[in-house]
Amino acid sequence: MQKYFITKENLENRVITGDDAYQMSTVLRFKGDEIVMVSDSEKSYLAKILNVSKDEVSFEIVEEKTGNMELPVFVSIFQGYPKGDKMEEIIKHGTELGAKQIIPTFMKRSIVKLEEKKITSKLERFRKIAKEAAEQSFRNVIPEVPSIPYLKTIDFSSFDVKIVCYEESAKNGELKAFKSLISNLKENARVAVVVGPEGGIDDSELSYLKDKGFIPCALGPRILRTETAVFYILSAISYEMELKKWK
Amino acid sequence: MQKYFITKENLENRVITGDDAYQMSTVLRFKGDEIVMVSDSEKSYLAKILNVSKDEVSFEIVEEKTGNMELPVFVSIFQGYPKGDKMEEIIKHGTELGAKQIIPTFMKRSIVKLEEKKITSKLERFRKIAKEAAEQSFRNVIPEVPSIPYLKTIDFSSFDVKIVCYEESAKNGELKAFKSLISNLKENARVAVVVGPEGGIDDSELSYLKDKGFIPCALGPRILRTETAVFYILSAISYEMELKKWK
Repeated sequence: MQKYFITKENLENRVITGDDAYQMSTVLRFKGDEIVMVSDSEKSYLAKILNVSKDEVSFEIVEEKTGNMELPVFVSIFQGYPKGDKMEEIIKHGTELGAKQIIPTFMKRSIVKLEEKKITSKLERFRKIAKEAAEQSFRNVIPEVPSIPYLKTIDFSSFDVKIVCYEESAKNGELKAFKSLISNLKENARVAVVVGPEGGIDDSELSYLKDKGFIPCALGPRILRTETAVFYILSAISYEMELKKWK
Repeated sequence: MQKYFITKENLENRVITGDDAYQMSTVLRFKGDEIVMVSDSEKSYLAKILNVSKDEVSFEIVEEKTGNMELPVFVSIFQGYPKGDKMEEIIKHGTELGAKQIIPTFMKRSIVKLEEKKITSKLERFRKIAKEAAEQSFRNVIPEVPSIPYLKTIDFSSFDVKIVCYEESAKNGELKAFKSLISNLKENARVAVVVGPEGGIDDSELSYLKDKGFIPCALGPRILRTETAVFYILSAISYEMELKKWK
């Protein structure tokens, strides 16, 4: 079954519009009677498709679906802006793995420079990827990609736990910080994670973040690429908090 | 610093050849005196570059480097052959995350069909990616990509723990199997992990694997893409076995 995030207004009017309607009518060739899930990011419903056109697909609600698919903590990933299409990969998999916010962040060693007008189209693209990944992984909400800030303009004061991935910590054998923090997370904690771009975190950025209360963490003995570090962190939080053992 | 895996013969002769020599001479523009790490997959050494040409770079050994970067268990990933370039992504990140073998496996719902001659070139490409990722992440060994078998031709009898990712288990709320198995892993255990292609595992494959001793495991409440499941599993094993807590 496919899930679709729609606006509150469309949910009230029982219609799906835009790209989703186009996909249902042309790619999936819906004829009516199909069952899908729709959500306004607050509640999710099983819906039966009624009429299908390229611009608009109407539906009726069959039943409300309850069930929480969200990580029990609020994780914001501040990702040093990487090269190529890595940012898209991070948003896609980071969404599946439960991040609540993914914030592409300009850091000293980010090579990519974006003009103002390019930023708007990049953000649109990133939000589309987050929406599609949230639909595919049956998230209750779409992660936010709010802006593309510079690291030192970010207000980190609302976060309870602050983690900065630091490769040198791995080289120095400091492997205790991450697990100590993650295994003590409380439900609904707000967790900020800063991951540097390919070139890593600059020394001045590291001391700036330490002053803001960030703890440098290594993620095992191997050197991980920037995108792999994000996958590791979110997987570990899920493993620690969402999975249980047999009695 | 860059790490290079070289043959035993090249290590004895203190030379680097092939693509690596080409890269050192043309892309990195080495002139001599640079320090790199070389390894024959058994031992690793700091090496000082002597003479550089496109075909051959000579070096002298400065010192042996000890230090284990390997996961304390032997994990073989049997990956249902996926579409597009996902297999390459899985080999790249799976290598960083510590897999010892990554075996692209034809399963019922694999869409890709490969002719015999295509298989040879695919394997060459996959092994190159594994080598490069092992170098970048400072692994002690290069993971094997031994062949591209059909699922039912594989002999799983040498494995101690057998995990099959099963999405339906997530839908049914069965979240205990994976953590129960992983948290009880013993050092040097041999772990087989089967992950289906995009369409998932076929019912007949699931019962075949269960007969072979595989335990169906869910990886949290969200539905993960096939490649994300691999990242989750390897990250969780590292988190469980390699990271410690503060006293």
